[in-house]
Amino acid sequence: MTEQEFLKQYHREDYDRPSVTVDLALFTIQDEKLKVLMIHRKEHPFQGKLSLVGTFVGMQESLDESAVRALNQKTGLHDIYFEQLYTWGNLDRDPRMRVISVSYYALVPSESIQLPEGDAQFYSADEIANSDEIAFDHSQIVRYGIERIRNKVNYTDIAFSLVPEEFTLPQLQKVYEILLGQKLYKANFRKKIADKIQPTNKMTSGEAHRPSHIYRKKESIC
Amino acid sequence: MTEQEFLKQYHREDYDRPSVTVDLALFTIQDEKLKVLMIHRKEHPFQGKLSLVGTFVGMQESLDESAVRALNQKTGLHDIYFEQLYTWGNLDRDPRMRVISVSYYALVPSESIQLPEGDAQFYSADEIANSDEIAFDHSQIVRYGIERIRNKVNYTDIAFSLVPEEFTLPQLQKVYEILLGQKLYKANFRKKIADKIQPTNKMTSGEAHRPSHIYRKKESIC
Repeated sequence: MTEQEFLKQYHREDYDRPSVTVDLALFTIQDEKLKVLMIHRKEHPFQGKLSLVGTFVGMQESLDESAVRALNQKTGLHDIYFEQLYTWGNLDRDPRMRVISVSYYALVPSESIQLPEGDAQFYSADEIANSDEIAFDHSQIVRYGIERIRNKVNYTDIAFSLVPEEFTLPQLQKVYEILLGQKLYKANFRKKIADKIQPTNKMTSGEAHRPSHIYRKKESIC
Repeated sequence: MTEQEFLKQYHREDYDRPSVTVDLALFTIQDEKLKVLMIHRKEHPFQGKLSLVGTFVGMQESLDESAVRALNQKTGLHDIYFEQLYTWGNLDRDPRMRVISVSYYALVPSESIQLPEGDAQFYSADEIANSDEIAFDHSQIVRYGIERIRNKVNYTDIAFSLVPEEFTLPQLQKVYEILLGQKLYKANFRKKIADKIQPTNKMTSGEAHRPSHIYRKKESIC
């Protein structure tokens, strides 16, 4: 049998298949807290509970396209770059049927998010992660997203995407502390980031505090 | 309508669904090369071509359970810890139908792999990644796996899992070079790993080279 003949007689209906969704965890910092975008479910199951923004994957769209569509349809947002987080496939995660969910996450400055009127709002990520009142396994997905962000803070420059181009070291330390969920010793922090920053010749002024040096992120050499 | 009533009248058959597979990229070092386990496909599509080890996800098993089953059924191997790599959902990645694949990867010492007689064999990961003769998008998955390993080498201690408990610095450097796919300057390399190692009071002996100090991985303090 040639491959063409094989394909002609292949009946995908002979095999049972799961459903597939995408779920999006959009993180930001607001009020000096790590927050995540959640929405009250209008429909069963888990009607009225908070869930991540998500949708079933359409048969004619890629996973990334499903994610873009879900974000836009449910929140009006667009142009946010999401990365894949993890794919969840436990048997009982949806009471309707077997549903496998491909989760995505993004971490963006709150200034870049213009949330239209609607149901989607930011909630404390820690509170969502520790609540047992969240739809599906979305509390677990948020927990996993927080963990991923914490890892990334330690081995990438992700924290710099949440300060302005010019910043003071206390400002940058605050962002690190919020993302990591813990206080840092000033001396350790400064040693850790010394290689990543360069001073400008500016100082802060006109504030209650004494002037601080202003820094920029060092350009990568390679 | 209560959630229970809703669930009773919900017909999942009303919605078309994709098929879901798992695919496993098992990496190791053999003959001073990064290699990946591939298998010749016995069946259409891509009959006779090399593919990763994989299977359709059963309706009654989690994704991780599918991965364990695929590995065992197709290679006889077990007890290898795989991590999720990425989930692939392009529309045309399988000529039979829409198939979404959750890929997994592992990097283990070749001594820990007792490959039974069979079709599964190790191939140069670079060659697989750059070949256009590989089934499905598995060449791309291998490419992505190599990239993930290279990232991990730089920010984790993954390379130490591929040397014996006691090792010389040239031995360790060789593993770094193979995983990263590039030669490293000895001085830079030693600076980079200085914090991760501690000397034993032993030296190599009885070899053609002059004696080298023997090191161990430093125990983490926290």
